[in-house]
Amino acid sequence: MSNSVKHHQKSLDLFKDQLEERQIHLSELISKIAAFQIAVPSWALGAGGTRFGRFSIGGEPRNLEEKLEDIGLLARLTKKTDAVSLHIPWDIPKDVAEVRQQAAEIGVGFDAMNSNTFQDYGQPLSYKMGSLSSANPAIRAQAIAHNMEVIDIGKSLGSKGLTVWLADGSNFPGQANFRNALQWTTDSLKKIYSALPADWKLLLEYKPYEPNFYHTVIPDWGTSALICRQLGDRAKVLVDLGHHLPNTNIEQIVATLMQQNMLAGFHFNDSKYGDDDLSTGSIKPYQLFLIFCELIAGGEDQAQAWESISWMIDASHNVKDPLEDLIQALEAISLSYAKALLVDRAKLSICQLEGDVAGAQEILQAAFQTDVRALVREARVQSGGEFDPFGYYRLEKIREKLIAKRGKNSVSTGL
Amino acid sequence: MSNSVKHHQKSLDLFKDQLEERQIHLSELISKIAAFQIAVPSWALGAGGTRFGRFSIGGEPRNLEEKLEDIGLLARLTKKTDAVSLHIPWDIPKDVAEVRQQAAEIGVGFDAMNSNTFQDYGQPLSYKMGSLSSANPAIRAQAIAHNMEVIDIGKSLGSKGLTVWLADGSNFPGQANFRNALQWTTDSLKKIYSALPADWKLLLEYKPYEPNFYHTVIPDWGTSALICRQLGDRAKVLVDLGHHLPNTNIEQIVATLMQQNMLAGFHFNDSKYGDDDLSTGSIKPYQLFLIFCELIAGGEDQAQAWESISWMIDASHNVKDPLEDLIQALEAISLSYAKALLVDRAKLSICQLEGDVAGAQEILQAAFQTDVRALVREARVQSGGEFDPFGYYRLEKIREKLIAKRGKNSVSTGL
Amino acid sequence: MSNSVKHHQKSLDLFKDQLEERQIHLSELISKIAAFQIAVPSWALGAGGTRFGRFSIGGEPRNLEEKLEDIGLLARLTKKTDAVSLHIPWDIPKDVAEVRQQAAEIGVGFDAMNSNTFQDYGQPLSYKMGSLSSANPAIRAQAIAHNMEVIDIGKSLGSKGLTVWLADGSNFPGQANFRNALQWTTDSLKKIYSALPADWKLLLEYKPYEPNFYHTVIPDWGTSALICRQLGDRAKVLVDLGHHLPNTNIEQIVATLMQQNMLAGFHFNDSKYGDDDLSTGSIKPYQLFLIFCELIAGGEDQAQAWESISWMIDASHNVKDPLEDLIQALEAISLSYAKALLVDRAKLSICQLEGDVAGAQEILQAAFQTDVRALVREARVQSGGEFDPFGYYRLEKIREKLIAKRGKNSVSTGL
Amino acid sequence: MSNSVKHHQKSLDLFKDQLEERQIHLSELISKIAAFQIAVPSWALGAGGTRFGRFSIGGEPRNLEEKLEDIGLLARLTKKTDAVSLHIPWDIPKDVAEVRQQAAEIGVGFDAMNSNTFQDYGQPLSYKMGSLSSANPAIRAQAIAHNMEVIDIGKSLGSKGLTVWLADGSNFPGQANFRNALQWTTDSLKKIYSALPADWKLLLEYKPYEPNFYHTVIPDWGTSALICRQLGDRAKVLVDLGHHLPNTNIEQIVATLMQQNMLAGFHFNDSKYGDDDLSTGSIKPYQLFLIFCELIAGGEDQAQAWESISWMIDASHNVKDPLEDLIQALEAISLSYAKALLVDRAKLSICQLEGDVAGAQEILQAAFQTDVRALVREARVQSGGEFDPFGYYRLEKIREKLIAKRGKNSVSTGL
Repeated sequence: MSNSVKHHQKSLDLFKDQLEERQIHLSELISKIAAFQIAVPSWALGAGGTRFGRFSIGGEPRNLEEKLEDIGLLARLTKKTDAVSLHIPWDIPKDVAEVRQQAAEIGVGFDAMNSNTFQDYGQPLSYKMGSLSSANPAIRAQAIAHNMEVIDIGKSLGSKGLTVWLADGSNFPGQANFRNALQWTTDSLKKIYSALPADWKLLLEYKPYEPNFYHTVIPDWGTSALICRQLGDRAKVLVDLGHHLPNTNIEQIVATLMQQNMLAGFHFNDSKYGDDDLSTGSIKPYQLFLIFCELIAGGEDQAQAWESISWMIDASHNVKDPLEDLIQALEAISLSYAKALLVDRAKLSICQLEGDVAGAQEILQAAFQTDVRALVREARVQSGGEFDPFGYYRLEKIREKLIAKRGKNSVSTGL
Repeated sequence: MSNSVKHHQKSLDLFKDQLEERQIHLSELISKIAAFQIAVPSWALGAGGTRFGRFSIGGEPRNLEEKLEDIGLLARLTKKTDAVSLHIPWDIPKDVAEVRQQAAEIGVGFDAMNSNTFQDYGQPLSYKMGSLSSANPAIRAQAIAHNMEVIDIGKSLGSKGLTVWLADGSNFPGQANFRNALQWTTDSLKKIYSALPADWKLLLEYKPYEPNFYHTVIPDWGTSALICRQLGDRAKVLVDLGHHLPNTNIEQIVATLMQQNMLAGFHFNDSKYGDDDLSTGSIKPYQLFLIFCELIAGGEDQAQAWESISWMIDASHNVKDPLEDLIQALEAISLSYAKALLVDRAKLSICQLEGDVAGAQEILQAAFQTDVRALVREARVQSGGEFDPFGYYRLEKIREKLIAKRGKNSVSTGL
Repeated sequence: MSNSVKHHQKSLDLFKDQLEERQIHLSELISKIAAFQIAVPSWALGAGGTRFGRFSIGGEPRNLEEKLEDIGLLARLTKKTDAVSLHIPWDIPKDVAEVRQQAAEIGVGFDAMNSNTFQDYGQPLSYKMGSLSSANPAIRAQAIAHNMEVIDIGKSLGSKGLTVWLADGSNFPGQANFRNALQWTTDSLKKIYSALPADWKLLLEYKPYEPNFYHTVIPDWGTSALICRQLGDRAKVLVDLGHHLPNTNIEQIVATLMQQNMLAGFHFNDSKYGDDDLSTGSIKPYQLFLIFCELIAGGEDQAQAWESISWMIDASHNVKDPLEDLIQALEAISLSYAKALLVDRAKLSICQLEGDVAGAQEILQAAFQTDVRALVREARVQSGGEFDPFGYYRLEKIREKLIAKRGKNSVSTGL
Repeated sequence: MSNSVKHHQKSLDLFKDQLEERQIHLSELISKIAAFQIAVPSWALGAGGTRFGRFSIGGEPRNLEEKLEDIGLLARLTKKTDAVSLHIPWDIPKDVAEVRQQAAEIGVGFDAMNSNTFQDYGQPLSYKMGSLSSANPAIRAQAIAHNMEVIDIGKSLGSKGLTVWLADGSNFPGQANFRNALQWTTDSLKKIYSALPADWKLLLEYKPYEPNFYHTVIPDWGTSALICRQLGDRAKVLVDLGHHLPNTNIEQIVATLMQQNMLAGFHFNDSKYGDDDLSTGSIKPYQLFLIFCELIAGGEDQAQAWESISWMIDASHNVKDPLEDLIQALEAISLSYAKALLVDRAKLSICQLEGDVAGAQEILQAAFQTDVRALVREARVQSGGEFDPFGYYRLEKIREKLIAKRGKNSVSTGL
């Protein structure tokens, strides 16, 4: 038995003792951690970039088939992802049956579909001045039709959701009529919503800026919720961690949305300045922990069912190997979730009722300071994953193998 | 005729010519400017301060009577304010009839009343851990009762609104239960709303932080609107210009609220960093202009009636004479309003429909670059105000006279 | 005589009267405005974009010759620009003599040269992990050699400056060693500085983030100044208006740098959120005015000679015609400069000495509220420029002609 | 043996095994942790507040003697603080000999002295318009004399440093002349510096805003360093964690200052929005960890000697018992320091040289995810402190005893 495995066992034993005092069964905790699965978007498998340039990674998946291969590898190593989120037009399947078969073989399903009305990729009318919010009804109609097509592709693959990130907005005062843009967007989304199958949901993102730098039509959770309320119960607000103004209390937004049963799901990433799309947990791990505290509390208090929430990573891999980074992100999310599960909510409630501020902090810190890596590792190993996925990936020289197979300059479809 | 008056006349003449080309009557423009009135809060008449200290101004009004005197002076000089907004418990009238009579004599009415559940001023239970959102039902009951008392005082004075700025929140993660705090706040406000006379409105503020530094129960317009929707039609969202996270597009919030007929009114001030409570227009005059563009457009397009919106200054006078500052603030608001009235909205709409971004900017800049001081001055003089209120105030040595009368160290009730 | 010209004359007359009271000669004021010239970078003539895409403008200049044509047109219309700032490798001249002759014919000189060590464009070693700050000495050597080559090209063209914008930094904690990166950067710049001709200056930019999102080697003016001090007197700090954290007081930085005689120059643009690269003056015109107040004061007080400062526009044209936008930017800069010239500095100094805060505000507002468009127009017309360059550009359908000549899909070299 | 003690022992054993693999002696690690001491300022022992009010804690120390009692208690429980930082005029000792004796008895020394030129407390001339930067030479002289008096008091107590936090600045454009204010401040500080004993240091703070809201004379580390360089080697830059614009990379500032041997020390606190003065480690624990990584690295690489850096807590206790909060803050600092000590710097350097970004992240996360509470506890117990200071404080009902002794409404001198 290696030292690592020995330390792992000792750590688990220590946990067992401590949890028993709180009458928590270690096995139940591990089951919860094992059950939590996060989708990966198809665009996260290639190199990202900035407006100043892009540096290739090598061995990037050149098509949907190779993207599924990469997701399959991630799933096998980490046992933390069981679905891929596709982007249209980047991932239009050539043969739906083949794609479904490949996905089934590697145990991966199809998470929410993503439409694209922020770029020109050959469509008749340009989205330069907007899409669902355009002053031009023909452009709105084109963007609506595109979203309906994305739904159709998703139906054929077994997806159950449509994610709409609307980049529409304006760069200068006067360029757009705020009220018209909001109204046209709402009207457009109503049409898209009407095409949504009964067992689907519409996940509506918000973002304060970029790629537009003066105004964005759906800049904040309030606007997204306002529109969703006009669409229907299956339209909910998607929270992307990077889509907030400086200093925003995101965990409070999560709580507010859950209170209203309006949280569609998450796009996990991290940031220091704007929508940096850095690896989840790499900059503000305590914020991520606090968000999971709200999610778990909201679920346990039946504000909104945990199962109704979608989970996805959405990051840009400008300098890291995407697969290594996704392994790190899945680990960081798991650690935050596990720590949040350790919070003594009963005691915390008492502190909140009694105004015991320092006591409440003690409880949160007790959970956050705990080293939960053994729990996450045990959950993974029990599920059939690798003891150390990151180490395995490097030891097996997987990137080198992918480069050998796909080439040094392979480019993944996407941004 | 002095040079100033000569320049004024020449400026007016030049306007007349230019406006005629656009078939706008100068007199109508001036009437609109003259008609626009902004309330002043009673707490703006004394020196403000920071947590690091407060420097007295001298001659501060020592009671409600003297506060009304100051407002009366402002009204006479500027003809831009016709109402005062009182704060309870700072401004409880001793004799309602007398106060009403004094107000009538100086032509000043009573704008929205302000309640205070963010300080301890002798009430039985402390607001240290919150008021309308408190986990303690007795504290919530006390805060509700206070608001009802404020309504009663307001009724006796002829006010038609209750402004609720709720400072409730928490300083540390774990201190508050977000969902409970929001729910209790909503429930508390429902009770207050039920006591609201039929011809009153409830103006609900939002603010992201301060005096609480981790979470505020009503941090953004979305939360305020969410609560208002649960209260009823007479509850609307109050926008205080300083109550936003860095870089927020406030003019868009104004447009969104007007589209929903949910804009209660404004607290005018300016800021560079946070809720700095600096003089309106002293830091970001273009933002103020853009906000007025939205207000005028929203009114003209009948999204929300202009008359349904309340206007108030809310600033803190840490280093300036409050009366001088209020004269400057009223002027800055008037200039922004006048410039926004000059925007060629018909042409702007065409630019917006055609995606003519540079053209739209030309139109806004044409209005903003115009020197409208003559218009504002003419409106004031025609209404019976001073040609140059700021100059008059200094020439007449009014602060010196107030100090002589009220003392060097008089302290205004308030923060 | 058209109405526009009549209004122009009346406005000028009004100015004359008002200025005479302050013993300012209108003609001197106009001469100052006319003399102020701003360089345009070669990359501003094509469409910009974001990481999410780029929308072409049509008729973009396809090579250096066409870029010079565009600058020549701008110079002729506005009489506000007399120099172009080239970027290497995007603008390597094929035939230096020809380029110099063309430039001479259109009356345009060569402003500071720009090097590029933030992209891979075929050089042997990648800048993915940095350039002047790289942990790899061979990469540093390559980046130094590139800068020296840029100096050589600049010498052949008659440029007198090298602008270094160093994108180096890191995306994640741990990626870079802060102190090493700073030291290596300083060492690299020392080598470049040693190759600088005696009559050149080195303009060193700073930027807090993007394209790196955790740390940038030169994030703020303090770091830039720290390095410049180690290089020598001809190294100074370049201020790009968009390169600051939220809420930064940029005018104060300008004053501090001038006090130390360390202001190299400006990159003009505007922004609401980050380095938005929007048109100068389109978002925060008052800030631009305040910056010019510092520049003029610093020059007049002989803190730093006005002539020692370089002026350049640096914007990204994502949705506007670049030439229209540059006309607007040159106008906005001129208006701010003209307004700042109107500030009564003698009176302002008295207010500052006496602690007359409200009085100081009156003086700044008196200048800012003045409509100076007639002054700027008169300066332009007297210099031989167009009465209304923006109107002329549209009337003459210049973009249409450029598209006809250069094609709908011509792409300018650059980002 | 209680369960807690058993778990503690098991945790320590596990550490021992793991550290031995890295050839680190547990006892050395614990010695380092035990040796690290943080000063507490006298004003942190009473309730803080905001401009909107202050809520008393009860049992606050009413004078310097009682403040020393509180510090003594903290020292005894935590063994993490051995010095108090006094503020003049709040803490002027009546009898120096007595104060020194009391301090010696409780084993507490006197850290840097703090001067106050931001309030009016009876001095002849007001600091309303500034102090060391005032346009009035008499005010500057008074502020300089005050600082010299603070030095004298400090000398009598055995302090070795003067901390200058200069609140000077302006609230409105035009109010201050930036360059004059900076020059006058530098000149004033030169005079103060000349009175500094040879074995003292001057710690110069910076802060972007508050209590001034347009400009602060020393807004950033660059300005503070610029002044210090003009003063002499014993003037260095003090970093207060809350004194930064949104999103600032503080750990990079620390590294830059250490590279220049210009880091005076730290004011520990935490914040989400501005200078919130919340408990250290309560909002951004990962940032605190990264800062300690830089501090340790800078010390080990001999950029700046670890011993030359001063450590102090500077927080405001608006809702928490100050003593409980200080126990939590001392613990949070210790945890961050201990985690940073665990970073495998040799491996990290290799990652940095090889551009192994994901590898570098693994190394930092390995340290941060480790539960180091047993290490910190062991260091405390070995030093004679309490096993669980927070638990002890509550169990012993110390606040209740202080209230019984000092009264419910005792008010600590200070803000």
